[in-house]
Amino acid sequence: MNHATENTALLSSAAEEARCTLTSPTAMPAASAFLWNRRMLLQVNCRGFVVARHMQPEPAAYAHAPNLEAKTFMQPEQPFYAHHPGRFLYVKDEDNGALFSCPYEPVRARAEQFAFSVGADEITWRLRQAGLEMTMTLRVPVDDAVELWECTLRNDSPGARRISAYPYFPVGYMSWMNQSGEYRADLGGIVCSSITPYQKVDDYFKNQHLKDKTFLLHETAPDAWEAAQSVFEGEGGLHNPDGVRQPLLGGGDARYQVPTAALQYQLQLAPGEERTLRFLFGPARDDEEIFALRERYLSATGFATAAREYQEYLAQGRGCLQIETPDRELDAFANHWLPRQVFYHGDVNRLTTDPQTRNYLQDQLGMAYIRPQTARSALLRTLSQQKADGSLPDGILLSPEAELKYINQVPHTDHCVWLPIFLRGYLDETGDHALLDERVIPEGEDKVDGEGHGRSVFECVSRAMDWLAAARDDRGLSYIGQGDWCDPMNMVGYRGRGVSGWLSLATAYALKLWAEICRQQNQLGPAEKYVRLAAEINSAVNRHLWDGDWFARGITDDGTVFGVSEDQEGSIFLNPQSWALLSGAADDNQRKRLLRAVKQQLETPFGPMMLAPAYTGMREDVGRVTQKFPGSAENGSVYNHAAAFYIYSLYAIGESDRAWHLLRQMIPGPGREDLMQRGQLPVYIPNYYRGAWYQYPAHAGRSSQLLHTGTAAWIYRCLIEQLFGLKGEGEGLRIAPQLPSHWPQAQVQRRFRGAVFDVQFERRVRGDGLQVYVDGEPLTEPLISPVEAGRVYHLRVLLPPAE
Amino acid sequence: MNHATENTALLSSAAEEARCTLTSPTAMPAASAFLWNRRMLLQVNCRGFVVARHMQPEPAAYAHAPNLEAKTFMQPEQPFYAHHPGRFLYVKDEDNGALFSCPYEPVRARAEQFAFSVGADEITWRLRQAGLEMTMTLRVPVDDAVELWECTLRNDSPGARRISAYPYFPVGYMSWMNQSGEYRADLGGIVCSSITPYQKVDDYFKNQHLKDKTFLLHETAPDAWEAAQSVFEGEGGLHNPDGVRQPLLGGGDARYQVPTAALQYQLQLAPGEERTLRFLFGPARDDEEIFALRERYLSATGFATAAREYQEYLAQGRGCLQIETPDRELDAFANHWLPRQVFYHGDVNRLTTDPQTRNYLQDQLGMAYIRPQTARSALLRTLSQQKADGSLPDGILLSPEAELKYINQVPHTDHCVWLPIFLRGYLDETGDHALLDERVIPEGEDKVDGEGHGRSVFECVSRAMDWLAAARDDRGLSYIGQGDWCDPMNMVGYRGRGVSGWLSLATAYALKLWAEICRQQNQLGPAEKYVRLAAEINSAVNRHLWDGDWFARGITDDGTVFGVSEDQEGSIFLNPQSWALLSGAADDNQRKRLLRAVKQQLETPFGPMMLAPAYTGMREDVGRVTQKFPGSAENGSVYNHAAAFYIYSLYAIGESDRAWHLLRQMIPGPGREDLMQRGQLPVYIPNYYRGAWYQYPAHAGRSSQLLHTGTAAWIYRCLIEQLFGLKGEGEGLRIAPQLPSHWPQAQVQRRFRGAVFDVQFERRVRGDGLQVYVDGEPLTEPLISPVEAGRVYHLRVLLPPAE
Repeated sequence: MNHATENTALLSSAAEEARCTLTSPTAMPAASAFLWNRRMLLQVNCRGFVVARHMQPEPAAYAHAPNLEAKTFMQPEQPFYAHHPGRFLYVKDEDNGALFSCPYEPVRARAEQFAFSVGADEITWRLRQAGLEMTMTLRVPVDDAVELWECTLRNDSPGARRISAYPYFPVGYMSWMNQSGEYRADLGGIVCSSITPYQKVDDYFKNQHLKDKTFLLHETAPDAWEAAQSVFEGEGGLHNPDGVRQPLLGGGDARYQVPTAALQYQLQLAPGEERTLRFLFGPARDDEEIFALRERYLSATGFATAAREYQEYLAQGRGCLQIETPDRELDAFANHWLPRQVFYHGDVNRLTTDPQTRNYLQDQLGMAYIRPQTARSALLRTLSQQKADGSLPDGILLSPEAELKYINQVPHTDHCVWLPIFLRGYLDETGDHALLDERVIPEGEDKVDGEGHGRSVFECVSRAMDWLAAARDDRGLSYIGQGDWCDPMNMVGYRGRGVSGWLSLATAYALKLWAEICRQQNQLGPAEKYVRLAAEINSAVNRHLWDGDWFARGITDDGTVFGVSEDQEGSIFLNPQSWALLSGAADDNQRKRLLRAVKQQLETPFGPMMLAPAYTGMREDVGRVTQKFPGSAENGSVYNHAAAFYIYSLYAIGESDRAWHLLRQMIPGPGREDLMQRGQLPVYIPNYYRGAWYQYPAHAGRSSQLLHTGTAAWIYRCLIEQLFGLKGEGEGLRIAPQLPSHWPQAQVQRRFRGAVFDVQFERRVRGDGLQVYVDGEPLTEPLISPVEAGRVYHLRVLLPPAE
Repeated sequence: MNHATENTALLSSAAEEARCTLTSPTAMPAASAFLWNRRMLLQVNCRGFVVARHMQPEPAAYAHAPNLEAKTFMQPEQPFYAHHPGRFLYVKDEDNGALFSCPYEPVRARAEQFAFSVGADEITWRLRQAGLEMTMTLRVPVDDAVELWECTLRNDSPGARRISAYPYFPVGYMSWMNQSGEYRADLGGIVCSSITPYQKVDDYFKNQHLKDKTFLLHETAPDAWEAAQSVFEGEGGLHNPDGVRQPLLGGGDARYQVPTAALQYQLQLAPGEERTLRFLFGPARDDEEIFALRERYLSATGFATAAREYQEYLAQGRGCLQIETPDRELDAFANHWLPRQVFYHGDVNRLTTDPQTRNYLQDQLGMAYIRPQTARSALLRTLSQQKADGSLPDGILLSPEAELKYINQVPHTDHCVWLPIFLRGYLDETGDHALLDERVIPEGEDKVDGEGHGRSVFECVSRAMDWLAAARDDRGLSYIGQGDWCDPMNMVGYRGRGVSGWLSLATAYALKLWAEICRQQNQLGPAEKYVRLAAEINSAVNRHLWDGDWFARGITDDGTVFGVSEDQEGSIFLNPQSWALLSGAADDNQRKRLLRAVKQQLETPFGPMMLAPAYTGMREDVGRVTQKFPGSAENGSVYNHAAAFYIYSLYAIGESDRAWHLLRQMIPGPGREDLMQRGQLPVYIPNYYRGAWYQYPAHAGRSSQLLHTGTAAWIYRCLIEQLFGLKGEGEGLRIAPQLPSHWPQAQVQRRFRGAVFDVQFERRVRGDGLQVYVDGEPLTEPLISPVEAGRVYHLRVLLPPAE
C-alpha cells in the first residue's frame, strides 16, 4: 500500500503513513492538528497559535489566552493587547494611501500633535496629522448605559482632501452560545447580538433580561460597514487592516464569528471645512431599547441636553471646599478631581450591588461632605442588615436580588469598627444628632408598628460596639478570623485563635469615638464603659504587641507575634502604627520611635508602603497577602488607603509637615519624572502605587490605575478637617488649621451647614499662636458657634510662624 | 483663582477648571481617566483602550476583552488574536534588517514555501524564505506535560548569512495575584511564575500543588533574552517588535507585568550550514521539577528517546483495521487518523476528571477495538458509581478528588442507554462474556467480603434497564427531565412531564440489545421481558410521535408534540429517525418516508444536519438548544455524532450506498473547495461542521475544530463492522460487507481476538450473492467460528454485483 496523493498544491497526504501537509498558512487559517499525552493536550494551528491544556488534575493553561473573558470587575495594572476593547478611528488618505488611527492604537503612527484631554464630564482626544485635525469626544448621559461619541475631522491643509474615516469599535468574543453582528438599516447602525453562556435552567430565567446586544449607531449614514472582525482585520492585522486597505468595507455580517462594529465615511473636505460625526455605543436588551436610545440621544440637541444634564448631575458632587494655595496642582486636585472621585464612590457605590461593608461606610463618610442625606440613608441601610449578634455582614446588599460575591463570601472581623468612624465624621459635618434616635427597620421585617418597631441607631451601634468588645481573646486582643481590614490576611487566625494588632487598636479607637458620642448624648454610663474598654485594649496591645520600636501586626493561631523586627519579611506594618496614634496606645516615647521606624523602613518617594520588606513567598500563618506580587496591592505597595490612615493619624497628633509631605505624595506629579514613573494622570487617587522600593526600585511608584479606593474619602476629610482645619464641632465650626509650614498663605471657601466661609489664611512672621477674625472681629476661641445657615462668613486666620 | 500650569510639554492641567491634558500617547501609556453614570463606568486610556462595565444589575461588559481568561476547556471555532498564545520564531537578517516569523504569525510575511506537516507523533513546519530553510518540530513525551521543540535553520543561499533567531513563546496574563518572569541561568531558560488567583482559605490548600510556573528552557545558551511582554513588543507591535528591532534583547525581567519568554540567537551560517536549537516549554510546580525535565529531555538523546517512547505509546492505539481501497484519502484516515482519535479519547478520557457518562461509555466502545482491557475497566468503574435506583450519575469520577463540573451538574436521562450499546460492541469484539459475571464493588464501600460482595455486571445492567423501563410516563414514553443525549434540550421536560421521542426509541433499542445478551446468557425470562418492553415502547412512539413522514422529537411539559412538520423551526430532527431504524419502530413504509424526509430536509454537502430549520430564537418549551447560533452545535449543525448514529442505522438496514455517502462526507476533502469551506485538515473528525445550509449557506460546512466527539468511536465501528463487515459474533467472525457499490475491490487487514485476517474483497461482475473463501476454501455460511488466536487467515470475499 503506497499511495501518496497530491491533492492540488494545497494539501498533500499519504496513505502509507500518518502525514498530512498543508502548504498555505492562509487558505485554511484555522486548520489545526493535535498532539497529546497522558498529561496534556495541544491543539496547534497552521499559523502557530496553540490551545494547550495540562491536567493537575483539572485542565489548566500554562500559556494564557485572550479568549473567553472571565467575569471580573477591574484588575490592577490591567494589561492591554492589540485586540483589547477600545474606540478607534482609522483615517486613510484616499489620494496617497497614508493611514493612521486616532487616538493612537491600533496603527500607532505618531501624530504631529496629540492631546488626551480629560474633563470632569467628558474626555477628548485632539490630534493633528498631515494637515488634518481630528477630535474624538466621549460623554455619558446620567441614567443610561450608553456612550456618546462625537468625532470631528477638519481639513487644515491648503488644498481639498479626500479621506476615508472608519470608526472601529471592536466588540470582541461575546459568547460561545450565540454571537453575531449585522448592519441594521432600520436602527441605523451595527447591532451585535449574543446569548450570555449558561447551562442551568434557572439561569435562563435570570439571564433573560440581560442586555446581550452591543450596538454602534450613527447619526450620519456611512458609505460602507463591516460586522465580522476577522474580515475587517484580514491578513493585514489591526495595524493595517485589509478592510481599510480596500476601497470600501465589504458590508459583511458576523454569523457566529467574532463580531465588530466598523463603519466607513468617504469624506471630501475643502480647506478649513470640518465634519462632525456622532455615534452611540453601548449595550441593549432589544431593538426597542436601541431605538429609544437613538431617539433620545443621537443628534446635536440630544448630545447637548445629555451634556447639560450630566453637568447638573456632577454639580451635586462639587464638594464643600474650594482652595487656592501655593500648590496649584493641589488646588486642581482638591477643587475638582478629589470631590468627583468621592462623589463617584458615594453616589454609585463603586458600581457593585454588594459593596463591602467597610468600603460602603467609608465611601459614605466621604459623602457626608458632599451630599449628607445619601450618607444618612446608607448608615440606616447598613444597620438594617446588622446581624442578631450585633456584628455586620461582609457586604451590604443594595437590592433584594443582590448576593454576596467574591471576597464578600469570606468573613472579616472589622466591619463594626467603621460605624463610629463614619458617625464621627457625619455628625461633625451635619450636626444631625437626630440620626442617633432614628429607628432601624431590620430588613425583611414588616414596617414599623405604632410604637416604633426596631432599635434606635444609637442602640444598634452600641450593640456593634459590644460585639467588637466581646470578640477578643483572653489576652484582650481582637480575633482576626479570616481577615480584618486586610482582606488577604486570611490565615493568621482562621483556626480561631489568631488576633489582629491593628483590629485591636482600631477597636480601641472606635470605642473611644463611640464613648465621645455617648457623652454628647448624655449617656454617661456607656461612655465610661467604652472609655474603660478602650483603655483595656490599649494596654493589652502594649503588653503583647509593642516590639521595642513599633507595634506588631498580630499574633498567629500558633501564638507567633508577627510584624516584628525579627521577621525577615513583613517585619513592619503601617496600620498598627497609625492606629496606635489614633487610639492613644502609643505614649510620647513610642510615638517618636514608631514615627522614626516608619520613616526609615516604609517611606518612599511615592508614599509610605503598607509593610516592608514585601513578602516574597507564602507564609502559611499569615496567608494570601504573602502570595501577592511583592510591592503590589496589600503585599507592601504604597496602598493609599493605609497611607491615608497614617496621614490622618499624623494630623491627629499635630505632625502637620510630615502629614503634608505624605499627602502630597499621593497625587501624581507635578514633575515629569514622577508622572512617568507612576504612569497616571492626577485626576484620581489609585488604590496603590507599587511599593517594594528597596526590593524592586525600578517598578516602585507605578500606579495600579484602579480608581476604587477608600482613600478618596479619607484624603478629602484630611484636607477639610485637618490641613485647613475647618471642622464641625457641636453647633459650630472649629478652626484648627495645620497648613504646611512653608506655605505663607492660602485662601479657602468652605461650605458648611448652609453657610459659606471665605477664609484667608496668613502665616505670621512672628507672634505666638493662632488668631481668627470673623468679619474683622477677633475670636477668643477659634470656634464659630452656632453657625447661621445662609450667612457668608469672612474669616482671616493668622497662623503661628513656621518653626 | 486662575492658574494654568504648563508642566513640561507632557501634561497641562488647570486649577480653575477640571481639565488635565496629556500630550503623548507613549510617555505614560496606561494613563487613564474615567467617566461614569448611574448605570456604567468607563475607564479610558490615552491610547484608546477602554475598560467599560454596565450594571444589569451585576457588572457586565459590552465590548469584550482578552484579559483574565475564564476557566474553560476548548471552545468551538475558537477565535485567535494577535496576542493569543502560540509558539513563534522571529528571524531577522542582520545584514538587511528583513524580518519574518515562523510559522506565519506574528509578522505574517508570506514565505516562499510553507508546509504545516502533521504527523501522528509530531507536528512540523517547514518554511523557505530568502535563502533560508526553517523547520520547527513539536513533540510531546508520553508522561510529562512538556513540549519538545526542535528548530533548525539552514542557509540555502550561496553566501554566508548573519541572522538573529528569536524563539518567542508568549505566556500571557497569568494571574492578578502574582506573576513574574525572569531569566534563570541556573535552570537554563526563562521561568515565569504566578499564583493561581483564589480568595478562600480552602482553595489555598487545593491550589498549593498547582503548576504555577511556565518555563522555556534552551539547550544552547542564547545571546540575549527578554521576559517582559510589553518591553519585547514595545511600540512596534507584535508584527514588528521593538525587541527584535534592537541589536540585542534587553534582558529584562517581568515584575507583575505580563511575562513572556523570548530568546535571541545571533547565528552566522556558512552556505549549506545548519543549526539546530532545542527547547522545552511547559508548566511546572517548582525549580526541582523544571530541573528534572531539563535533565530528562533537553538533549538530542533525550528528544530521540522521548520520540521513540511516544511512538511505542501510539502503537498501542494502532487499531484493528488496515485498509487499501479505491479511496486513498479514506485509507489514510482509517489506517492512521481515526484509530488515533479513538485511542486519544479512550486512553485519556478527553483529559477530563469527570467524563460525561454517555461520552465515557461511547469512547470506551471505541476502545474495545483498540485496547479492550481499558474498555473493560471503564465499564466496571462506571457500574461502581451506579446509583441506588439503578440509574447512572451524569459523569464518572476518575479519581476520589474529582467533582462533577459544568454540564455534569445538570441531570440527564439517557446515560443507562449506553450500557448495552457498549456491551454489544465490547462482547462482539472480545467474546469476553465473563465480564457479565464480574462483581462490581460500589465505590466508597469496603472491598469484597469472602462471598463476593457487590452485584454482578449482569445484575447491574439489568437494574439500569429496569430503571430506564420505569422512567416513562402514562403514554409509555421516556421522561426527558433536563435533557437527554442533547444536553441543551433542557426545557422540554424540566417541569417533570415532558418526554423524549429519541430517548424512548433509544430505550427500546437498548432493551432489545440487552434482551439479546440475556438470551445469550440463557436468561430467557428477562430476555422475553425486555423484548416485550421494547415492543411496547416502539408502539407507544408510533402512537404518539409518528408525524406522517418522520418521527417527532418529543412532547413538551405542556403536551405539545415538537419536531413535527407544522413547526416552523426544528420541524425535523435526525436522531429519532436513526433510532427508529435501530429500534425497529419504523416499518418499511415509515422507513421509506423518513429516509426521504432526511434526504430532502437535512442532508447537505457536508453531512446531515441534526435538525432543521435551525432555531433562530428561544423556544421556551424546548430550551437552551434553541438559543445557540443557528447551524452551530446542537442547533442544527452537521453534528457528527448524530450523523454517525444515522450512518450506523443506515448500515443496520442495509442502505449501504446511502451510508457510504454520508460517511465520506464526514472527512474533510479531498477537493480544494471542500477543504477551504471546512477549513480543517483530514486528521480528525470534529464535533460539528456548520449546518443551517438553507439559512446561512456561506457558513455551512465550517469545522468547529473541536476534536472531542463520540463520533470517532462510532465511525470506527461502522468501518469495521458494517462497511467492511468483519464483526465478532459468538465465538467467531462474521463476514457481512457493505462496500459502496462503485468500489470494484478493496483489501483489508483485520486483527481480531489474536488472529489476523487478510481480506481481499472483489466485486463480481455477475453472480448472485456473497461468497467467502478461507485460504482458498469456500464457506457455506460467512462465519468463521471459532477463531484461532495466532492464526493468519487469508480471506477472499466475492461481493454481489452492483445493481
